[in-house]
Formats: sequence, C-alpha cells, structure tokens
Amino acid sequence: MKQGENNIVYGSVLRTISEYNLISENEHIVIGLSGGADSLCLFDILCRLSDSMNLKLYPVHINHGLREEACEDEKFCTKLCADKNIECRVYGFDCEEYAREKNISTEEAGRILRYTAFAEVFDEIAEGGTPREKIKIAVAQNADDRAETVLFRIMRGTGTDGLVGIKHMRCDEQGRQIIRPLLDTYKSDINEYCELQGLNPQIDKTNFEEIYNRNRIRLSLIPLIEEKYNPEFKKALNRLALSAEEDRLFLENLACDELEKITKNFSKEANKIILSGVDISELDPSIRRRVIAQALKKIGMIADMGFAHYKACDDIISSTLPSVSVNLPNGYVICKEYEDIALLKADTSAADAYLERISVRNRSVDNPSTKNDSVQLLLLDADKLKAEYGENALASIKVRKRRPGDIMAFPFGHKKLQNLFVDRKIPKFDRDRIIILAIGSEVLGYFLVDENSSASVETKYTQVSDVLRLDDDTKTYISVELTVSV
Amino acid sequence: MKQGENNIVYGSVLRTISEYNLISENEHIVIGLSGGADSLCLFDILCRLSDSMNLKLYPVHINHGLREEACEDEKFCTKLCADKNIECRVYGFDCEEYAREKNISTEEAGRILRYTAFAEVFDEIAEGGTPREKIKIAVAQNADDRAETVLFRIMRGTGTDGLVGIKHMRCDEQGRQIIRPLLDTYKSDINEYCELQGLNPQIDKTNFEEIYNRNRIRLSLIPLIEEKYNPEFKKALNRLALSAEEDRLFLENLACDELEKITKNFSKEANKIILSGVDISELDPSIRRRVIAQALKKIGMIADMGFAHYKACDDIISSTLPSVSVNLPNGYVICKEYEDIALLKADTSAADAYLERISVRNRSVDNPSTKNDSVQLLLLDADKLKAEYGENALASIKVRKRRPGDIMAFPFGHKKLQNLFVDRKIPKFDRDRIIILAIGSEVLGYFLVDENSSASVETKYTQVSDVLRLDDDTKTYISVELTVSV
Repeated sequence: MKQGENNIVYGSVLRTISEYNLISENEHIVIGLSGGADSLCLFDILCRLSDSMNLKLYPVHINHGLREEACEDEKFCTKLCADKNIECRVYGFDCEEYAREKNISTEEAGRILRYTAFAEVFDEIAEGGTPREKIKIAVAQNADDRAETVLFRIMRGTGTDGLVGIKHMRCDEQGRQIIRPLLDTYKSDINEYCELQGLNPQIDKTNFEEIYNRNRIRLSLIPLIEEKYNPEFKKALNRLALSAEEDRLFLENLACDELEKITKNFSKEANKIILSGVDISELDPSIRRRVIAQALKKIGMIADMGFAHYKACDDIISSTLPSVSVNLPNGYVICKEYEDIALLKADTSAADAYLERISVRNRSVDNPSTKNDSVQLLLLDADKLKAEYGENALASIKVRKRRPGDIMAFPFGHKKLQNLFVDRKIPKFDRDRIIILAIGSEVLGYFLVDENSSASVETKYTQVSDVLRLDDDTKTYISVELTVSV
Repeated sequence: MKQGENNIVYGSVLRTISEYNLISENEHIVIGLSGGADSLCLFDILCRLSDSMNLKLYPVHINHGLREEACEDEKFCTKLCADKNIECRVYGFDCEEYAREKNISTEEAGRILRYTAFAEVFDEIAEGGTPREKIKIAVAQNADDRAETVLFRIMRGTGTDGLVGIKHMRCDEQGRQIIRPLLDTYKSDINEYCELQGLNPQIDKTNFEEIYNRNRIRLSLIPLIEEKYNPEFKKALNRLALSAEEDRLFLENLACDELEKITKNFSKEANKIILSGVDISELDPSIRRRVIAQALKKIGMIADMGFAHYKACDDIISSTLPSVSVNLPNGYVICKEYEDIALLKADTSAADAYLERISVRNRSVDNPSTKNDSVQLLLLDADKLKAEYGENALASIKVRKRRPGDIMAFPFGHKKLQNLFVDRKIPKFDRDRIIILAIGSEVLGYFLVDENSSASVETKYTQVSDVLRLDDDTKTYISVELTVSV
C-alpha cells in the first residue's frame, strides 16, 4: 500500500464512492482541476484509485482569466499532470466578458463555462467510442460546501427538496453524470490530506468567486453558530442534507410513476402536458407538488418553483371554476380546462405568428379557387355582411385576439363571446389564442389553428356568426385564409 | 359582525382552523390560558367563534408558582373569564419542586404539569359523556415559536421529520387531540390584535421558562439573520416546516402501511415486534427509517432516534451475519435473528427474575413428585454427574447467565457453548437471557423460559449435556425447578 492509502480521507472518499455507486471499474473520469486543495485532493485520490480500478483520467484546468495568479495556477496544474504522465486539458475563458455579455454574475459565468468545458471533454470521449454511461465528470465540492449551501437555502427559503443542497450524483440536461466524491469529507480533513501528501494547493479561486452572501455565511455566520450553539453545526447540516436526499429520491421516484399514470397528453414540441384533473387532485400534497415539478421539467421549464407557485397550483387544481389559469415562472402557465389540468409554456408568439399570416379576401362562388399556398379557414356570406354592417364592411374587418365586450350576432339578438366560449367549453388558455374576425366589438367569426396538427393545417375551434353563414343563395363570400408557404 | 371579526389575525386563524380541520361545530375546547398575549388572543378568537360554531370552552390557568406575579396572572385570568361568564379552572403547581424531584429542567416540569392539567380536564369532559373525538386541547404556540423550534432543531441536528417543529395537530399517548390554531400567525400580529381588541396581556411567563439556548436563538440569532441575510427569515423557516409537515404526513402513512405488511409478530406486553428481514431490507431507506421509528413507538419507545441509531439499524438489517444486535436509546435493541429483524425492549430484568426463582434439587426416581408450586425445567442424572465432576458436584452447581469460555461436555470431547448456540440458530438477544447450569465453565445444561407463554411455563430452548442425560438406569437425578407461585 502506497503512502496515503491508509489515510482517513482516502478511506472516507472510497466509502462515499462505493455507497453512492459513483465510480465503477474501467470508467473514464473527467476531473475539474483548479489547483486548489479540494481539486488536488480529489485528483490525488483518483490517481491512486486509477490503478486498481483501471480508470482513465482527464484532468481539465479552466483558466478563468480573472486574476494575475491564473497563469501560475495553470502552470502548476499542467506540471502536476505532466509529472504523472497524464495530459491536462486547459481551457481559457474571459469570465468577466461572458458575464457582461449574458448579464449574469461572474460566479455564474464561471460555473457555466466550467461545465461547458467538462461537457466538451465528455462528448469528445464519447465520440471516441466510450459508452456515455462509462464516463463521469468528477467535481470537488466538499462537506463544508454542502453545509453552506444548505444553510444558505434555509435562510433564503426552501422546501424540503432544496435541503439536499448538493447531490452526490446528478445528470445534466444531456444526461452526463456529474459526481462529487468529496461530498462527505470536510475541508479541514482535505487540507490535512494535502499537507500529509505534500500536495501544494494554490489559493482556491472559487473562494473569491462566491457571491457575497455565501462568503459571509462561510466566514461569519457558521463560525458564530459553531462557537455559540453547536460546534458540530456543519455535521448537523450535512446529516439533514442526507436525510433530505433519501426522502427526495424516494418521493421523486414515486412522483415519476404517478405522473406517468395521470398524463393524458404530452407534447414536448408544444411544451404542453395535460393531466387528469381528478387524479391529480386525489394525490397527496407532498406527491402532487413533485408531480407538478416533474411535469414542468418535462415540458422544458428549468426555473425553481417557489412556495407561492405550488400554492397557486393547488388553488387551480382544487378550483370549482371550469376554466382558470395562473402564471408560473419563465412564462409557463397552469390551467384548469374543465376535467383536465394543463401545464404549458404560454407561448402566444405562435398564435401571433398565425395572426400575421392571415388574409381576408373577397371571392366569388363561380371561381372559388384559392391560391395553392393558402388554406381557407372561415367563410362568410359577403352580401349578408354588407346587409348587416354596411357597404364598407369588408374594409372594416379586423383580424385580432379577443377583447372584453366582444359580442356575436344571432338571428334573435347578440350573445357575449365570453359566454359562447363557456358554452363550448373552450379552455381559458385556448381562448387567449383564438383568432377573431370582427368589426368593432361585433365578432363575425373565430377560429383556433391547431398547432399540434403538423401534417396539414387544421382548426381546433371554428364558429361563424349565424347571420353570415353561406347558403344556396350565396354569390360572393369573404374567405379568411392562412398562408402556409412562401 | 362584532369588532375584531374583520381583523386580519382573526381571518388567518380561521383559515388555519379550516385548512387543518382543527375545530368542528359543537366541540368542547380546553384552552391553556396563561394571560400572555398568545393565549389571550387564542381565547378571544375562540370566544368569538364559540357562538357561530356552538363551542364549549374550558379555559385552564396554571399557576406555576414560579414568580411573584403568578398570583396576579391567576386573578387576571379568572376575572377575564368571569366577565364572559365562563368558568376558569385554576391549577396550582410547584414546578421547581417537581423539577427537583424528577431531576428535570423547570421548563420541562412546567410543560409536563401543564399538559397533565389539560388532560385531566379533557378526561373530566369525556367522563361527562362527550365523545373523546369531540374534545380538543387548544394551545397557543405561534409562527415565531415554530420558526425558533425549527432553527433550534436544525442547529442541534435533525432529520427532515424534525423540521416540522410544531404540528398543527397532534395526539398525546392517550389519543387526546392537541391543536394549535395560532401556528400560522406571527407574534407581531398577535401583539397587534391584543392591542386593537383592548386585551391586556400579562408578561408571558413562558419567555422566562425557555431554556437558555432557545432564548438566545429568539433574542439574538434570529434578529441577526433577519438583519443581515433575510428579513423574511421566520417566514422561510415556517414554509420549510410546512413542506416538511406535508412530506412527513405522507411518508408516515406509507410507513404505517408497510409496517403492517412486514410485521411477523407483535406483542405490546413483551415490548417486542418481529419484522421480516427480507421485506425490511427491500424498503427504500426513507421509508425503512420511518418503519423502524413506528415499530419502536408501537413497543413503547418514546425517545428520539438519532442519525447514528438509524445508521446502526441499517447496518444490522444489511448484515450478512446471522445473529447481530445493536443497542438503541432507552434500553431498546434491534437484533437480526436469522431471517427476522426483532425490535424489543432489552429487559434482562425478566430473565434475572427467573434466575432468582430457580432451585436445584436432588430427587429420586422412586419419588419424582415435585411440589405443586414448581415446574421442572431440566433434569440431570445425579450419578453420572458425580462420576464426571466428583462427589461434591451438586454443591458446586451454579445457576447463571452465559460467560465467554463456557463449554459443554459430549461423549467424545467438549464443544464451545457459543458454537452450540450458533448451530441451534439461537438469536443473540435470547443467548443473553438463557439460564445456564454450570460447574465452573463446564455447562451442564441450559434453558430459556418463554416469557410469551402466559398460560403455563414453557421453555423456548433446552439442552442437557449428552453425558448427563437420564436413562433407564437412572436412580437419582438433579431437578432444576422454577417456583411459579408463592
């Protein structure tokens, strides 16, 4: 046994790796190597492991270009790897510029660029023929980091799921596995390991990249609580995180099964999922919350849902109204559509795009041909139109979305458009996307193009005012057409 | 509508009552009435509610006898109730003496005595013919209290279940429902309510009864975090508690179902429950933890299990050894007994009591009668005994528990008692309770009285050394007897 392998830290990291199945034999491990104590310790331990487990290591150093020492760190890391005959990939980024460009914090910029580089190396290995499940990205967060994250979240406000803080393993959106073998090891032990092994940590840049609150939590609040309340406070936070991780894993798996059971319709392309309203209302609140979170994730939402958002979802689900909706983060919406609960990206731009492509033409029954690149969506009798709304009616017709006060003419009077929608059980979400043909507040007809019918243009709802319908006497008519190609 | 009923606090308390089904019509409510702002607010709101919901209120004032103002508080409360024509029950206790007697903190003494008084009033109402489910005990903990409790637990170390802090409703061990209608209302709002309603809160004694750490958390740590990190910190803690309450309710119900499924044997009297080892090992860790907690509660354990205890249980459950055990709090034990997992109160006193009631007598085959109040448990050939161990063997026989190094004679040599136990698959827990008949380290025989067989005394395991067995030539024998009555 070589020096270091009977070390407490080495044993503890091995236990974490085995308990959470982080690494198996013959795997390819991309390692973030900043030159700080955490990443040096991780790299050193993985180097020791690589012999017995036949691992192939790909250290990646990111030169964030933030400080003068950055070049020193780069040299240090490349030399360290060269001494072990391992290639060190170096990526240079200008984090500050990227941050300015994207209007995000320098810390967030660094995080994004780091993971982009890791992903690039990952994909390169995969393209070389290694199965993706045999490649891991190893990063060096430790138990202190986890404790800080948990405390930060508690203070900022979190539900139980947020208490997990940092997970031992997660997958990014492309399914790349990111592992944290040092997550159960404390900073003090890592520093001691580095000293014992003669590693020579550079000043850890990440300390300076943290946002101000996080640094204060680390440097001021945690030491205060350790001194005055509980010297084992960080351990308490980590145990809480582990307990939350267990619960979360279990509840999320359950929610995943439930979501499958109650999904009535799901379209990733349309960013829309429809759930059975009865089934979701019967779920336990604890599971319902997670079903909603997973459903939103499926249709592309990545923002965190707050307590108030889940509360709003509960209100929608338990509402006795047939058709209500509430906005969620990132432009997503939850709607009650009679028997169903729909979650969707409230993308009115699609409907707006249709609006621009619609033309209203005067046509004659003798020559009903439409151009090839158009679809007829709505037909109104032109003579009846003139009789009802005057000779200039055609010029006054507007194509628009619905407005309060819209009414529609029937042989024996007018009806409110709103009431017609309710009678036809048109969901609120669809009502906002319906295209209206109107003169002032008088609605001549309306329709909704079904965005889910890809092969041909179809309408989901269509209605023409009774007093404008085509009949056997019709000679000319108004054709509302959608341009389908250019 | 009377003054006060359009107040925000009144509305918020009503919402809490309705959301958690705390109070229904025609119920009897025992109320803790200290005279402090919280209990005054609660009492005032319940008085307003009592008309519309036809509630009967039983305010209970506890004079803790701790401070000079105590008598003032008592007068204040009795007068307040008298003005409303409601009887106020007053209990006087000497908390300090009780605390000394029981060797607990004054705060804990106060808590126990308070709830004892509430329970007494509860039982009195029940004896008057009111169904127990129509009686509630209402106490005045508020959202600040909950936030403090949650933070206190986080700092001291807790799993996710402990985050619930204080529940809206709980049942005591005799099934009395204790409700907390103010749990979603903050102290500042309660104070404002008291001022608006012209209530005149006495200085809240409970503030002085809190243990030192709790007071520091309230007066120093929470204000610090509110000032420097998040002015809404208490709300964040309460939301976390609500989220934990949802999860806990769901997971505990699930664990309850699972426990029922995997229970092989349960005896409340013997403080023992036996679970299927395979089934429990297949449970998700998150559920397993709660199944163990509930199983322990069923057999009478009331202490909190720590993180390390659950870890130890996992180790026992996943152990490949056939027979291992670990101590849990309050003298409870978890044992792996081959295919089973047993949880039980490690009450060796029962075995010790048997030990005291055992006598070893010399009897003759011609006159085998035992006294009526004895049961013969083990018989050894007296002549063989003398031949093996000398003339004075009988006087040298000791009745005791097992010891390391114990051996047993067989025709062709000795075997270790430990190995015999393993061969016979005697669980470790039973091994410690087995009664041994020995001369020095030579075991002549052993047996275990089955404490679960109530009708007659039966032995669970018995073995006599092969070289001492009774046979057709036996003339006198050694009878090991248990006195069953006096």
